Amino acid sequence: MSEKILNNGGFTLPGEAGFEDLTLKLAEKWGADVIRDSDGTQLSDKIITSGYDIYSTICLVRGSNEWAKLNMDKLQQCYLRSYPLIAKGDTVKIDILQGFFKEQFLINIKDNPKEFWQVFDRTTGLEIEISNWELDINTGTVLVRNTKKWHKYTVNFLVYRIWEEISAYNHITNSWGNREHELPIEPMYKETQDHILKYLDQWLIDHKHTKVVRFTSMFYNFWWLWGSDPNLKFIVNDWGAYDFTVNPLSMKLFEKEKGYKMTSEDFVNKGLYNNSYLPPSEKYRDWMDFINKFVIEFGKKCIDLVHKHGKKAYVFYNDHWIGMEPTLDSFKEFGFDGIIDGVFSGFETRKVSGTKGVEIRELRLHPYFFPTGVNGVGTFIEGGDPSLECKTYWLDIRRALLRDCVDRIGFGGYLHLVDDHPAFVDYVQELAEEFREIRELHKEGKPYSSKFKVAILSAWGNMRAWGCRGHFNHGNYYNEIMESISGLPVEVEFISFKDIIDKGISGDIKVIINAGQLDDAWSGGWNWSNEKVIEILTEWVSKGGGLIGVGEPSAVKYSGQYFQMCHVFGVEREVGLTVCFDKYVYKKVEETHFILKDIQGKLDFGKEIDNIYVIDKNIQVIEDKNQSIQIATNTFGKGRSVYFSGHKYTPENIRILLRAIYWAADEEEKIGFWICSNVNTECAYYPKINKLAVINITGKAEETTVYDCKGNEIAVSLKPYGIKIIDLG
Amino acid sequence: MSEKILNNGGFTLPGEAGFEDLTLKLAEKWGADVIRDSDGTQLSDKIITSGYDIYSTICLVRGSNEWAKLNMDKLQQCYLRSYPLIAKGDTVKIDILQGFFKEQFLINIKDNPKEFWQVFDRTTGLEIEISNWELDINTGTVLVRNTKKWHKYTVNFLVYRIWEEISAYNHITNSWGNREHELPIEPMYKETQDHILKYLDQWLIDHKHTKVVRFTSMFYNFWWLWGSDPNLKFIVNDWGAYDFTVNPLSMKLFEKEKGYKMTSEDFVNKGLYNNSYLPPSEKYRDWMDFINKFVIEFGKKCIDLVHKHGKKAYVFYNDHWIGMEPTLDSFKEFGFDGIIDGVFSGFETRKVSGTKGVEIRELRLHPYFFPTGVNGVGTFIEGGDPSLECKTYWLDIRRALLRDCVDRIGFGGYLHLVDDHPAFVDYVQELAEEFREIRELHKEGKPYSSKFKVAILSAWGNMRAWGCRGHFNHGNYYNEIMESISGLPVEVEFISFKDIIDKGISGDIKVIINAGQLDDAWSGGWNWSNEKVIEILTEWVSKGGGLIGVGEPSAVKYSGQYFQMCHVFGVEREVGLTVCFDKYVYKKVEETHFILKDIQGKLDFGKEIDNIYVIDKNIQVIEDKNQSIQIATNTFGKGRSVYFSGHKYTPENIRILLRAIYWAADEEEKIGFWICSNVNTECAYYPKINKLAVINITGKAEETTVYDCKGNEIAVSLKPYGIKIIDLG
Repeated sequence: MSEKILNNGGFTLPGEAGFEDLTLKLAEKWGADVIRDSDGTQLSDKIITSGYDIYSTICLVRGSNEWAKLNMDKLQQCYLRSYPLIAKGDTVKIDILQGFFKEQFLINIKDNPKEFWQVFDRTTGLEIEISNWELDINTGTVLVRNTKKWHKYTVNFLVYRIWEEISAYNHITNSWGNREHELPIEPMYKETQDHILKYLDQWLIDHKHTKVVRFTSMFYNFWWLWGSDPNLKFIVNDWGAYDFTVNPLSMKLFEKEKGYKMTSEDFVNKGLYNNSYLPPSEKYRDWMDFINKFVIEFGKKCIDLVHKHGKKAYVFYNDHWIGMEPTLDSFKEFGFDGIIDGVFSGFETRKVSGTKGVEIRELRLHPYFFPTGVNGVGTFIEGGDPSLECKTYWLDIRRALLRDCVDRIGFGGYLHLVDDHPAFVDYVQELAEEFREIRELHKEGKPYSSKFKVAILSAWGNMRAWGCRGHFNHGNYYNEIMESISGLPVEVEFISFKDIIDKGISGDIKVIINAGQLDDAWSGGWNWSNEKVIEILTEWVSKGGGLIGVGEPSAVKYSGQYFQMCHVFGVEREVGLTVCFDKYVYKKVEETHFILKDIQGKLDFGKEIDNIYVIDKNIQVIEDKNQSIQIATNTFGKGRSVYFSGHKYTPENIRILLRAIYWAADEEEKIGFWICSNVNTECAYYPKINKLAVINITGKAEETTVYDCKGNEIAVSLKPYGIKIIDLG
Repeated sequence: MSEKILNNGGFTLPGEAGFEDLTLKLAEKWGADVIRDSDGTQLSDKIITSGYDIYSTICLVRGSNEWAKLNMDKLQQCYLRSYPLIAKGDTVKIDILQGFFKEQFLINIKDNPKEFWQVFDRTTGLEIEISNWELDINTGTVLVRNTKKWHKYTVNFLVYRIWEEISAYNHITNSWGNREHELPIEPMYKETQDHILKYLDQWLIDHKHTKVVRFTSMFYNFWWLWGSDPNLKFIVNDWGAYDFTVNPLSMKLFEKEKGYKMTSEDFVNKGLYNNSYLPPSEKYRDWMDFINKFVIEFGKKCIDLVHKHGKKAYVFYNDHWIGMEPTLDSFKEFGFDGIIDGVFSGFETRKVSGTKGVEIRELRLHPYFFPTGVNGVGTFIEGGDPSLECKTYWLDIRRALLRDCVDRIGFGGYLHLVDDHPAFVDYVQELAEEFREIRELHKEGKPYSSKFKVAILSAWGNMRAWGCRGHFNHGNYYNEIMESISGLPVEVEFISFKDIIDKGISGDIKVIINAGQLDDAWSGGWNWSNEKVIEILTEWVSKGGGLIGVGEPSAVKYSGQYFQMCHVFGVEREVGLTVCFDKYVYKKVEETHFILKDIQGKLDFGKEIDNIYVIDKNIQVIEDKNQSIQIATNTFGKGRSVYFSGHKYTPENIRILLRAIYWAADEEEKIGFWICSNVNTECAYYPKINKLAVINITGKAEETTVYDCKGNEIAVSLKPYGIKIIDLG
């Protein structure tokens, strides 16, 4: 352990060569124990030898341009689907790269297009015979013959990726000018692996002061297609999709392992690709499994090498994280010592704090020290307010940390940018101290929480635990629910349809939440037409389980129903196909329901599902709007259900969710322990040390009363954004 | 022609025995030339012989209880689907009539249930083998064996209908107490036909003073299932569905004619039945055709009999109208002399005025002289305001009459109820005079209108021209558009997908409107996955056609697209499955677009489709809300398109629609003729007589300027609800 850790520590500072004094001054002030470099910054000898632990970032698939230029057939690839072009006669000529960012992609003509590409009539959905299309390699166009007039044609084609996306983003954001574009290399080739291991070995020798190798991350970036049009700068950005893992070699190895072949259309999927919002197909799951195994296998070799050099290996839970799957049990096989992620929200915090199989979990907080933040908002430039930004994120992150803490926090970027922002510099000091206090609370054990588990059911299950599609996807019911629950005193688990079919529902789960939209992965889509799913969940509720549905739970147009669990929820949705059917005339319950007990004023669920009607006259309609149900509860056998027409992360809705969970679990009487009277405040009680943390989750001063488990009331005043830690012992 | 017609006439008064003086006084005041009876009222001799023409109502399938009770196997029938019941073990016992109004239905056990019924597992969608279920005729329950636990089971079963629905409604509404329930008889049986013809013959002899036999209507009522629960009094009410035409005999005759068999599931269709909101299947169209032919064939025999007695035959375009299909060419084969319908709105008015093959078209206005109106609103009781109600309907009806007039108007119900409402009595006099003036305008020819035709494209086409599902279905884009266009100076036609596939698009159509929601009959649903539809429409637009889409035009989840005509509209909808795809950053057009030129203030489309994004950067975004497109225009080849996120019948939106039609037709310069400056007013110009009608379409006084076709301006002041007819010659 470094000499600097003492009462400080747990803080990683981004150092910057040329700003040595600032680096060391802030390291002192913020209680840093670690100094790191960032993409675009260097650490000087003075910093490296200053006594702080040193993290050094390395990205294994970039930084090897010399080798890459000699091995252009070993760059990373992906499938693209050309934009649909309408045939105006019996041929159509498609400029396949049209609309895509040409600095990102180079058409792969080395691997036989006739073997790896496909052309489709997207009006009929039928593939065009190979003999009916021809690639002109000089123009990058595909000529399709015998087309049907007015039909749409597209080409699925392979491209090399010629500008590593994260570096490209940093390059453009920070105007790096004519600095050479980083080429991403494909590690599936033996030759690339040899090169990477050699490169890493030399790098480890060169970085003798580095204590922690901070991998950014492993090999495959999340899916990020860029466009050529300034009004469509990015075409797609999906933090969970495996589209950048595809290439002919991997497809061949996959075939060998799994016994069947993937086609271009298995990846392109009519242009929807296998994006995270679609319930994954069996084939796609097989592909993910294949890639995951490879990333672990080769990743482990790299980590072993780091360890051989006496250094620690941490990994960034983002960027090139595809194939790592830190929520799977197999993640521990990597042998990583730590994991780090850049977070804005509570659910992302839980993603990090919940990672098993590593010693250290670290949050990189925002704002990133860039003129403009990752979220596109101006930060360290005129008009930016980095302190307010940081405080706002911290409110959400802190809620989650009270439930499940991490070991470290830190920042990244160009340190010199903070020098003009003394208020920010002071605030970070305060934040770092607050973090250390919270971390201390967890030392002796977990905070008080529900004895039962709440499971979130989606097509992804644990594979996208505390993750949706990168940062907060506002308006997505699954994401909104995750954010709210990330700070609630309940045990949370993520399960998939496959899980419940294969293993049933574990006995400690008392409440299951299904939150999403028709056909999407979060609600579950076609999985709901599987009779096993219906049987298992219906039986489970009938025996006492509590099912909470948000938005369009269990929705798929199948067998005349829309909500396949409508027999449990007692409600259905009118989507315009049964308007001639009269709807049951319900009466709202008159007294305030348990679920709404702490709420004053009008419900605000944000974007909501409309046209929800009653099909079971025994349900309790708690709240409605324009004659559409917003909240309804039902009983089914010994179990209970709650339907919500939407959910938006707000203090009121967090509380509504907590109460709904306890109601669904049939444990209403137990909610009264360690809870705040004021929904703008929350608390966490740490029984082993008899300490209570009370937080303000708003930017205004709040008064609140905490109810302990013995009927005592503890009055607490909180400053805006404030926290109080009370020793009750 | 009666002596009373003179300058009056064109007005049908509901007479009432016992109120002879009132009857004759109001006949005089309202300028009636005809007196009619209504369901529940009689005309006395004094009325019959008073010199007025007499309409007498007759419903051929009721009023024969004596015969019916001897022929209970010849009552009308229908299929019902029992409410889904969940198996909690390996058997389930279903009380099949549970939830249905037992005074309406009697289980048909005469026709072998094992032949005509089906039992389904609705969780899997699979039929249960016949050997696995048994009907207990004593309890009306079906026992299903070998069920899967937690699956839902339903029974498709046949019932006789034992209370003719219209009479039941009138009975209950007017508290007719223990008056015997009317039994509806099934005319498909030869014996029933013989009975009906005999009954009609006698009735014609008995009604020697009757000049017009007012059929109410032919044989089959629209689909109207009643419930047993007071909070679900009606289960379904679909003005267009053929579900009351089914019975074993008809199914057998159908098989003989069409060469294949219909099953119960062909009618029940998972519980959705063949309701009007679903695009009709081929089988269902065959069934409609079969029934339509029968209704014409036997209907004609009845009408011939009427003519043989020297009387006229009019038919009510409602109630038992199923199988008549007055919009089809075959309608003229009936030989009806007139058609009458009860209307509230403009589109219903056009439905009547557009009927071909009859001499007389008559509107029965509302309110109906019942204490409570057909729409459930109290009218001639305390708190009701029949004048205001009547005026409100008249505003909408009058717009339509200016475009295409009918020959007569009238009222129905209990005349004595109006006696307490002198204001209403005066208003009807005024309204009748107004009607006669409007009718006069049409005598010499049609009003000025677009030279081109506007076609409304739906899965129903002409079969539901100016009809959706009975009275105004607010919020239904198809219906809202119909109501707006019913008073616009454009020629309108209704076409189906089958029409355009079979016959192409007629040369006089310049604009096509498709208005509806995903998967519904109005938008077109699965018809949009037919490549022929896409080819024909795309070609047509490319050659200069104008396509207007409202709500979710061309929407079906197919081949990766949502709007199948997105290449023409230039917009698509995000429904939660491609959220990771970035959307094109558009700029709204800055100057006021032609379409919005007459509009002040904010757009109000009512219920709108959200998440509409740009896919073609060349489109013009005219209006948006929360970054979702509300109005966008595009060009495609020589053609144009307009997308609207919704439509609500309001003065502003009527004008927006008109302007959009002219824009789509590429005839912007021609809109300026015979148009009002003030959108709260409209006009119609009758060139043959050089007269101009200007109407106020609101309840407030309005000032407006009419632009003629020569650049002249005519200033007009209008009273609330007012009209001015100006002689320009």
